Amino acid sequence: MTSVADALARIRCVLANTSHPGNIGSAARALRTMGLRRLVLVSPQIFPHEQATALAAGAAEVLERAQVHASLAPALADCHLVLGATARRRGVELDELDPRAAAQRVLEASLAGQQVALLFGNEQSGLSNEEIQHCHAAITIPTDPDYGSLNLAQAVQVVAWEIREAWLARAGAPTLTASRDLPADAAQLDALFEHLARTLDAIDFHKGRSPEMILQRLRRVFLRAELDQREVRVLHGICADAMRMARLAGAQLGRAGEN
Amino acid sequence: MTSVADALARIRCVLANTSHPGNIGSAARALRTMGLRRLVLVSPQIFPHEQATALAAGAAEVLERAQVHASLAPALADCHLVLGATARRRGVELDELDPRAAAQRVLEASLAGQQVALLFGNEQSGLSNEEIQHCHAAITIPTDPDYGSLNLAQAVQVVAWEIREAWLARAGAPTLTASRDLPADAAQLDALFEHLARTLDAIDFHKGRSPEMILQRLRRVFLRAELDQREVRVLHGICADAMRMARLAGAQLGRAGEN
Repeated sequence: MTSVADALARIRCVLANTSHPGNIGSAARALRTMGLRRLVLVSPQIFPHEQATALAAGAAEVLERAQVHASLAPALADCHLVLGATARRRGVELDELDPRAAAQRVLEASLAGQQVALLFGNEQSGLSNEEIQHCHAAITIPTDPDYGSLNLAQAVQVVAWEIREAWLARAGAPTLTASRDLPADAAQLDALFEHLARTLDAIDFHKGRSPEMILQRLRRVFLRAELDQREVRVLHGICADAMRMARLAGAQLGRAGEN
Repeated sequence: MTSVADALARIRCVLANTSHPGNIGSAARALRTMGLRRLVLVSPQIFPHEQATALAAGAAEVLERAQVHASLAPALADCHLVLGATARRRGVELDELDPRAAAQRVLEASLAGQQVALLFGNEQSGLSNEEIQHCHAAITIPTDPDYGSLNLAQAVQVVAWEIREAWLARAGAPTLTASRDLPADAAQLDALFEHLARTLDAIDFHKGRSPEMILQRLRRVFLRAELDQREVRVLHGICADAMRMARLAGAQLGRAGEN
């Protein structure tokens, strides 16, 4: 019944007493890009509004399906875990989690079949003490102490992102498939280094110095680059052309010697 | 010299060809709340603008101190590591890092005294292929495949947040001393790539084919290798000797032509 795949569907974002419709739209977009689709609005000051729709961009569906409640209690009625985002310590005693720890807790609960709410308060005043009373713990984003004022949608973005990361880790992240060719193996690299060594000889790079150090240095460069097989072929091609030029030049020098 | 405390000061956010001044302001705020203060704008379509200032809120100072350049190269000239945010795969081959891995890499580089740039492209079109050419690797945010369109400032927020988390984890940790030579900066690498391009011409590597793809491929290889300044000198030396051979060979061919 409860699978990793549908864990995100049990997580809602509750925005309480939001002042600016634009922030509601931006929050919807932030949620949607992270795979979260459930938005709940508690007495928004202006909603619906064209600015919300504009800023939601492709996440308009999240706005359209948003539930709107006149008070907080019904918005949280079926929730098993409520975490409230707070910028600073309050008189209320509440465990504080950073977004990463909060995301772990949210995901554990959701995977266990629980309904979870992420609660965000008004842009200026944050969560009221009454709203804080509904929370099991606080989410506190460790911002710069000199200027910690995250925009509402940006706070939503950070928390939603951490939940997505936690979820991807559990779902088995879609691997960023290699955009490159097959990596070169050790034998292919050795052949390249050998070709490179002959090329440096041919173009008289060493000029009497020992080639050892330079070859080691170049080896390190190309090992660090983690060459793929196509790149190895390109580098072989360059060596071949440089050697061809050196042969032609040698013929020239030889001819000069003959004269 | 390099301490954890000032690591964030070596990290700049470069916004290229931004359309909407509001996004510049929101990005400034996102950076500032995460302890990042260096914003660089490359040919912003509208800047300065009251909307940027309004959305920057308490991060106005970041906007006021933002450098503005007409093109990308000078914005990156002294950078040792450039990571570009891309939403999707490109023809160009580039290692892709998720924001967490990218943040680790950014912080390692910065702790080693390197200048780091986070590069974000235009809101609609993202980074151009030309802009991508300046990047050592890509940052790709693993958004919901069904709707992955993060707003620019939200993408900045996610990356800045991960850098802050990585930084907080390191704050207090002993700094690593670099074991290699000073890394090459972007201007030094550009000079090397230019020398390499002339060398490939001289040794007739292209044989009538367009040099573009090969040069991009080689750029990738050497950017991935994160060359230090001594390595750049060695590679310049190899190019110089190959060109010398090509000149001699050309004289030979010319002579053959005369005969």
